[in-house]
Amino acid sequence: MITEIAILNIKNQQSQEFEINFSKAEKFISKMSGYIHHELLKCVEQEDKYLLVVRWKTLEDHTIGFRKSEEYIEWKKLLHRFYDPFPTIEYYTEVRF
Amino acid sequence: MITEIAILNIKNQQSQEFEINFSKAEKFISKMSGYIHHELLKCVEQEDKYLLVVRWKTLEDHTIGFRKSEEYIEWKKLLHRFYDPFPTIEYYTEVRF
Repeated sequence: MITEIAILNIKNQQSQEFEINFSKAEKFISKMSGYIHHELLKCVEQEDKYLLVVRWKTLEDHTIGFRKSEEYIEWKKLLHRFYDPFPTIEYYTEVRF
Repeated sequence: MITEIAILNIKNQQSQEFEINFSKAEKFISKMSGYIHHELLKCVEQEDKYLLVVRWKTLEDHTIGFRKSEEYIEWKKLLHRFYDPFPTIEYYTEVRF
């Protein structure tokens, strides 16, 4: 399993609209092949800051499967205009002790 | 529920030892009041970088309950010497659409 992490800084005063659009965008990511789970979390200490966590079966399910899909075009239309700066994505794997 | 997030940058070449100590430290955090779940994830793209995610019932379960406990002294002894720089903690809450 791969965990995709993105810290989302939203333009000033646009968080409410961002949340509305995110609730619409969820359905596009949720139906992708290799998608396992996602959650959007809101920062306690800083306004207009969120953490997006998406679980995928493989890295390519995100980088190729989602990023090159029709669904990603809809996702971008709904969400990308809210970000400032544009978020950096990081990928994490489980640690096996 | 509160999600505590920390990006952990581990001193060069010390990741293996850090993981061993983390596997020992887990038992101290896991038995705290208000503790729900934790996971340690390893960054795919950067060596010696981890993400710690801990779920708590309330913020104070971490900031007071854990941070002022005997268990935190053990946690610190096992883990704090590996971090460079010392990590910043962020707290997130669920978004209700």
